[in-house]
Amino acid sequence: METLSVALGHRAYPIHVGRALLDKSELLLPFLRQRKVAIVTNTTVAPLYLERLSDSLRRARVEVVEIILPDGEQFKDWQTLNLIFDVLLQRRCERSTTLLALGGGVVGDMTGFAAACFQRGIPFIQVPTTLLAQVDSSVGGKTAINHPLGKNMIGAFYQPKLVLTDTDTLTTLPDRELSAGLAEVIKYGLIRDLPFFEWLEEHLERLLLREPAALAEAISRSCRNKAEVVVADEHESGERALLNLGHTFGHAIETGMGYGECLHGEAVAAGTMIAAQLSLQLGWIGSSELDRIERLFRRAGLPVSGPALEVERYLALMQHDKKVRDGKLRFVLLQGIGQAVVSDAAAQDEVRTAILARSPHA
Amino acid sequence: METLSVALGHRAYPIHVGRALLDKSELLLPFLRQRKVAIVTNTTVAPLYLERLSDSLRRARVEVVEIILPDGEQFKDWQTLNLIFDVLLQRRCERSTTLLALGGGVVGDMTGFAAACFQRGIPFIQVPTTLLAQVDSSVGGKTAINHPLGKNMIGAFYQPKLVLTDTDTLTTLPDRELSAGLAEVIKYGLIRDLPFFEWLEEHLERLLLREPAALAEAISRSCRNKAEVVVADEHESGERALLNLGHTFGHAIETGMGYGECLHGEAVAAGTMIAAQLSLQLGWIGSSELDRIERLFRRAGLPVSGPALEVERYLALMQHDKKVRDGKLRFVLLQGIGQAVVSDAAAQDEVRTAILARSPHA
Repeated sequence: METLSVALGHRAYPIHVGRALLDKSELLLPFLRQRKVAIVTNTTVAPLYLERLSDSLRRARVEVVEIILPDGEQFKDWQTLNLIFDVLLQRRCERSTTLLALGGGVVGDMTGFAAACFQRGIPFIQVPTTLLAQVDSSVGGKTAINHPLGKNMIGAFYQPKLVLTDTDTLTTLPDRELSAGLAEVIKYGLIRDLPFFEWLEEHLERLLLREPAALAEAISRSCRNKAEVVVADEHESGERALLNLGHTFGHAIETGMGYGECLHGEAVAAGTMIAAQLSLQLGWIGSSELDRIERLFRRAGLPVSGPALEVERYLALMQHDKKVRDGKLRFVLLQGIGQAVVSDAAAQDEVRTAILARSPHA
Repeated sequence: METLSVALGHRAYPIHVGRALLDKSELLLPFLRQRKVAIVTNTTVAPLYLERLSDSLRRARVEVVEIILPDGEQFKDWQTLNLIFDVLLQRRCERSTTLLALGGGVVGDMTGFAAACFQRGIPFIQVPTTLLAQVDSSVGGKTAINHPLGKNMIGAFYQPKLVLTDTDTLTTLPDRELSAGLAEVIKYGLIRDLPFFEWLEEHLERLLLREPAALAEAISRSCRNKAEVVVADEHESGERALLNLGHTFGHAIETGMGYGECLHGEAVAAGTMIAAQLSLQLGWIGSSELDRIERLFRRAGLPVSGPALEVERYLALMQHDKKVRDGKLRFVLLQGIGQAVVSDAAAQDEVRTAILARSPHA
C-alpha cells in the first residue's frame, strides 16, 4: 500500500492506494467520530462490493446504514440527492456520523455534496471504485450535482477525511469506463507532467491489460499531480483551473448529448482535442504534438472528435461554464505537452474553426 | 450609521446599521466583484423595497437581476431554492456575480445557501428587512433550507461579504413579526448579557413603539453579541450552540405545527420557557427568575407556552435536532439570567415534566 497526502493544513488527509483495502476496516476506524457510517453506493457497485465493506465495518462494531442510488450521470440531480437526506434522517444520523462514498465519480460527487450540506457539514470518506474517481474526482474536494442548464452547477468545495483506493475494484470495471478514466490520467501528463505523459506512451498497454503494478503507478502519479494542484489553489482561483483541460468543451458535449449518453472521460478526451486544435491554430503547439496527443487517446480507446452538434449549440452551452468571466470565455490551452495555461486569447471565430475541425459535421 | 465588524480573519465583514441605507448604493459597491447583482426577495418585500434598492444600484451602472420568491417558511425548500438557480443560469450569472438577500430570515437563509452552492460558491450580501433577520439570521453565516423531517437540515456555513441593515424597513413590519424578532433580542440578554436584559426590561415599550434610536441600540447590541459568539466558534463546536436557547424545543414546535403556522420567534419564546422550566426543575434558576423571563416575553407579545402536541411527539421531533450526540439529547439551559450552558444533565422524565408544565394539555 502506498500513502500520499493532500497537505491542506488542519484539513490534510491521506490517500491510501493498494490492493484488498476494502477488507481493512482498521484503515477507516481512525477517521470515524462515532461508530456509525452511512455508505452511499449505486445499484451497479452494491452487488459487487457493498457487503464486503459493510461486513468489515460491522465486524469492528460499527453501525452501518446502506443507501443504494440508481446508477448513472442522469441521476446526479437534486431528487437523488434527497434520497440520501431522507435515509440519513430516517435512520437518525447525526453530525458526527460519517458518510462514505463507495463508487465512481457520480456517487462521490453526490455523497460529498450531501456531506457538505447535511446539518451544514458532516465528515465523509471516499472509497472510489472506478479509475476516473480514483485518479480525479475523489481527490480535491469538488462536490456537486447537475442542473438542467449546466453540469456541476450546484455544489461545494468540501474535503474528505480519507481517500481509500482499492485497485482490485478495477477488475470489474467495464473496458469503456477504464478508457474514460485514462482520459483524466493522460490529462495530468498534458497539463503539467511531460515525464508522466512519456511513461504513459510507453506503458499504456499494461494499463489496458489491468496490470496491478502499472495501475497503482498511474493512480499514484495522477493523485500526486492532483494533490499538488489542489494544495496550491483549493478554490480554483488560479492554477486549479488547469485541471479543466478539455472540460469546457467536454461539458458542452455532455450537456448537448444529454447526461448519460457519453461518459465524462470520453467528453473530456474529445474536448481536449478541440482545445489542442485551438492551441495549434494559435501557433502554441505544432501538428506533431497534436498527432502525438491524438495517438495516445486513440490507443486508450477514446474519441478524438466531438459529436454532431451545431457550432452555435456548442457556444451556447459553453456560456454556462464556470470559467466565464465578464461574459468572456476562457479556455485551458496547451503551450506544449506538459504545459497548460488558462487563456482568453482565442477569438470566437477561432473557437468556431476549432470546433468544426473536430466535429463530424465539418 | 453605526458599523460593527464580524472579525473572521480574511473573511471578516462589516455590519452597517442605520436609516435610509437602502438608497446608498455606495455602501454596496466596494463589495461587488463585477457590476452585476442578483437580488433575491419575496412577494411581500418586493413591492415595498425592491425598486428603491434596484434603482439605487442601476444608477451606479450595476446590472440588476431580480428574483421574487413566494413568501413564507413553507417555501424554504428545495423547489424554491431551485427557482433561484434557474434564474441565475438563465440570466448568465457567473462566479463573480453577487447574490443579495433582501428580506427576512427565510430569504436570507435561502439566498445564503444558494450563494454557497451556486458554482460552488459566489459572493453574497445580506440586506435584512425584519427585526429577526437584522438581529440574528443575517449575521454569522448559517444558511439552510428545511427538510420534511427537520428544520434547517440542509445547509452550509457561508459568510456574507456585508450586512446592510436599514432600520427604516421596520416601519412596515407587522406587529406580530416585530414581537417574533424581540424573542431573539431577549435571547442575547438571557444567554450572555445581563445588562442588556435589564436594558430591555426598561426600554421594551420604546421598541414596541418602534423608536428608531431604541431599535438601532437593540439591533447593535444584539449583533455585537452574535458577532462575538460567531468569531469564537464559527462552526458551532462549542459556545455557538448557546445561541440555540429555546431552539431545540422551538424547532419541534415549528415542525410539529407545520412550517408557516407559527413564527420562528414565537416558537423560540415558547421553547425558551420550556428550557427555563427545565432549568428551574434542575434547581439552576429560581422561580423569581422564571417569572421575570416570562414577564418580558409577555410584554413583548410572545407566547410563553407550547402548542397542544403530545409529549411523545415533542420528543420524537427533537430526535432530529442537530445537537443530538450519540443518541443523547442536549439542551441549552440557564444557570441564571445572562448565563446559558449546553447540558445533557436533564433526564428524559425531567424533559417530559417540563414540556407538560408548559403545554396546554397538561
